[in-house]
Amino acid sequence: MLFNQKLRAIQRKDNSLVCIGLDTDIRQIPKHLLRRANPIAEFNRRIIEATKDIVCAYKLNLAFYEVLGERGWHIVHQTLDRIPENIVTIGDGKRSDIGNSAERYARLIFEDYKFDAATVNPYMGEDAVKPFLERKEQCAFVLVATSNRGAKDFQFLRVNGKPLYEKVLQKVHQWNAKKNCGVVAGTTYPRVLRRLRELSPTLPFLLPGIGAQQGDLESAVRYGCDMHGELAIISASRSILYASSDEDFSDAARDAALSLRDAINHYREKYF
Amino acid sequence: MLFNQKLRAIQRKDNSLVCIGLDTDIRQIPKHLLRRANPIAEFNRRIIEATKDIVCAYKLNLAFYEVLGERGWHIVHQTLDRIPENIVTIGDGKRSDIGNSAERYARLIFEDYKFDAATVNPYMGEDAVKPFLERKEQCAFVLVATSNRGAKDFQFLRVNGKPLYEKVLQKVHQWNAKKNCGVVAGTTYPRVLRRLRELSPTLPFLLPGIGAQQGDLESAVRYGCDMHGELAIISASRSILYASSDEDFSDAARDAALSLRDAINHYREKYF
Repeated sequence: MLFNQKLRAIQRKDNSLVCIGLDTDIRQIPKHLLRRANPIAEFNRRIIEATKDIVCAYKLNLAFYEVLGERGWHIVHQTLDRIPENIVTIGDGKRSDIGNSAERYARLIFEDYKFDAATVNPYMGEDAVKPFLERKEQCAFVLVATSNRGAKDFQFLRVNGKPLYEKVLQKVHQWNAKKNCGVVAGTTYPRVLRRLRELSPTLPFLLPGIGAQQGDLESAVRYGCDMHGELAIISASRSILYASSDEDFSDAARDAALSLRDAINHYREKYF
Repeated sequence: MLFNQKLRAIQRKDNSLVCIGLDTDIRQIPKHLLRRANPIAEFNRRIIEATKDIVCAYKLNLAFYEVLGERGWHIVHQTLDRIPENIVTIGDGKRSDIGNSAERYARLIFEDYKFDAATVNPYMGEDAVKPFLERKEQCAFVLVATSNRGAKDFQFLRVNGKPLYEKVLQKVHQWNAKKNCGVVAGTTYPRVLRRLRELSPTLPFLLPGIGAQQGDLESAVRYGCDMHGELAIISASRSILYASSDEDFSDAARDAALSLRDAINHYREKYF
């Protein structure tokens, strides 16, 4: 099944554009879990159990797992094993390197871990991105305009009258021969998001920055979705994972994810 | 000791600007090593033993180790343990992410592995690079102009009449408050390298692309070095690691590294 088909199917089934970022930090999880043999895997398992019927995707930022050393690799596998087959999984590593190195990163993310999608950094150009585009069921979300303050340093610079992020988007369209490219677009700059969706009506958009990063939800929905009010993946992490630091943390995470889903669906009804 | 001091000291001691890229591929190492318990760590150990008096640095491309899963983390540690203290080590991961994720990558590379330097991707801007610049003894080499074909896709675009890589270099200078920034500059575009060194006379330059990627050695030396004929790190990988596929592989690697060192020193004498 093509990535976009899988994404659309789960978004319809769960009536949800919510993606939970499993950026799990041992210092922030409930204290009672620290007595367990594998607190992070246990925390992720409980969050997934509590939310798997109300999300379209889970995203793992690989930085949070690599820093754990050899255990990190295991925890990624254990976590992915808990995620139902029909939910989209995103390996958020923002990798980029020349061909033979990029091939290795792609193999790690797509063949070893078996994520449905990866995030990749475009700065090194086509041959650094291409190894992530060889599997038509698996998607590469290219960083086009990110949600952080530093995005302005280079992404917003004007090249022949157009911002660099539009140049990147043009290339993404050229790289999309197998229909497996996606766009990472921050939600902190609504006008940018609006422009990107205008230029790219059918690609899936990964939208981080909701929650702790204070992106604007209404414009994320209005401008992030395709014409059917779908194919936007709205990712939140800390605001869901750490909604409570007590034993009820997974219930609180479910409540936070449900609130987000409902707020998103309110705007979907308004605009689509 | 500041990174630049360490680099200059070992370059003088070993009279060498050679960096060996330990991008070790199990499919390319001599067959007789495959009988060993840990062929990659053994291969790296033998290469280091054979070359440690004639190089200034070893660079590990993390893609080659991450793809090995949990074992990869161990092999990086085992390899770093074999490298003498006074030789520069570079963790080549080309990472970039928003602040709290970048902090984790920086912690992995600088505190867990204890590399002297990391490579980082600038596309996400200042807050993605800053976490790599907090330790004044440890250097962040920022990708400015890379050696691959795709470099032209974005790095060479003109922004207000100047190529994007010059804009990136300007920012690198702003980020250099702790004197621990470096520049990654490909050797496949000599005019670009010349311009970068002109603009940046005192920063260390990491120069990949010699050997298999066919960068031009003479211009790498002429334009990559500072005014003392130093602070260029000229990296080769496959042409040294796989100089022979027989039992004499480490002698052959030493010969290849010596030839490279001598060729570099020939040009250093010519121009400095």
